[in-house]
Amino acid sequence: MNDEASPSPVRRRRGRGARERILKAATALFTSQGVNTTGMDQLTTAAHVSKRTLYTHFASKDDLVHAYLSQLRDGLLPDDTAAADSGADPRKQLLAVFDCDPLASDGPVRGCPFLNAAVEIPDPDHPVHQLAAAYKAEFTRRLTALARRAGARDPEELGEQLALLYDGAAARSTTFNDTAAGRQARVIAVGLIDAATAPAP
Amino acid sequence: MNDEASPSPVRRRRGRGARERILKAATALFTSQGVNTTGMDQLTTAAHVSKRTLYTHFASKDDLVHAYLSQLRDGLLPDDTAAADSGADPRKQLLAVFDCDPLASDGPVRGCPFLNAAVEIPDPDHPVHQLAAAYKAEFTRRLTALARRAGARDPEELGEQLALLYDGAAARSTTFNDTAAGRQARVIAVGLIDAATAPAP
Repeated sequence: MNDEASPSPVRRRRGRGARERILKAATALFTSQGVNTTGMDQLTTAAHVSKRTLYTHFASKDDLVHAYLSQLRDGLLPDDTAAADSGADPRKQLLAVFDCDPLASDGPVRGCPFLNAAVEIPDPDHPVHQLAAAYKAEFTRRLTALARRAGARDPEELGEQLALLYDGAAARSTTFNDTAAGRQARVIAVGLIDAATAPAP
Repeated sequence: MNDEASPSPVRRRRGRGARERILKAATALFTSQGVNTTGMDQLTTAAHVSKRTLYTHFASKDDLVHAYLSQLRDGLLPDDTAAADSGADPRKQLLAVFDCDPLASDGPVRGCPFLNAAVEIPDPDHPVHQLAAAYKAEFTRRLTALARRAGARDPEELGEQLALLYDGAAARSTTFNDTAAGRQARVIAVGLIDAATAPAP
């Protein structure tokens, strides 16, 4: 198969297929072995593409890591907007983050891919580190929005606290390779939500 | 300077100096840029040793990472034994973990080196990952011992909860490169300690 054929509808379909295969292979390898120890050679083999095709779709390894995290973003963020429309219970939505992947995965436990990327690429000025920090800020903002709808007296504080519990559970699940910390975080979260939404004494 | 001179008292002194220089350089580089992106070539340059000297003291990169973490261990673990002798207030000792390095560092904020190593080397069977997990288990055990001395009704639960808060603060400090999360974790910790040690209603 020649992904570098001249432009045509067929080529464009193949091109899209290659991009998807690369991202799928990158997600599997970055998740299981980390970003820095995964090389472009290994990625071309796993995705069944040539190196030229890989670099046609992603100009650099950094670009590929950025795309890998970007495609995970919407699936991992709590959806506060749709929930507001559907009238769902914001308290349940706050607690649901502790019941979902990656904290409650059935497979190998690898924690939060954004926290992990921030560790692997520690330079605060690096685009991937900035993407990870922006993700965690948006995650916190959405928990704050849900905390406000749940009637918390100080939604910013409760949002930050629940995000910190989430990150603690993610870090411990990465270290211990089990999901016990997610359940412990949920217990603390219930207490914090109850205290933050109880009538003032 | 020739670190590979024939054995003599001078050689042994030089050998010890080289080992210390290597560990010091490794600590600086592993902390600032991570374990996986720091190469043995860069380490020999930073430590002013030959590659042969480096491999005389550390048979492999894994050995060096293991030694780097091992020398940090006692400085970062809360000392429950000495405290028991000195009659210090266990509640203050529990809270002190949130006021100390690495959560309250004056310099660049890089979080917990053991959590970071567990992310960088995700294989649960790898000796470095196992060292990191054993460290966090011992950290939790010591918090549990302090929680017991503080009069917690369920010391295991409180120890696990405080360790989870600590790890959440560490993960967020790595991501956001600031120490705000350590202070937030301390606020939650005060509430959990108070609730766990209050007289039963």
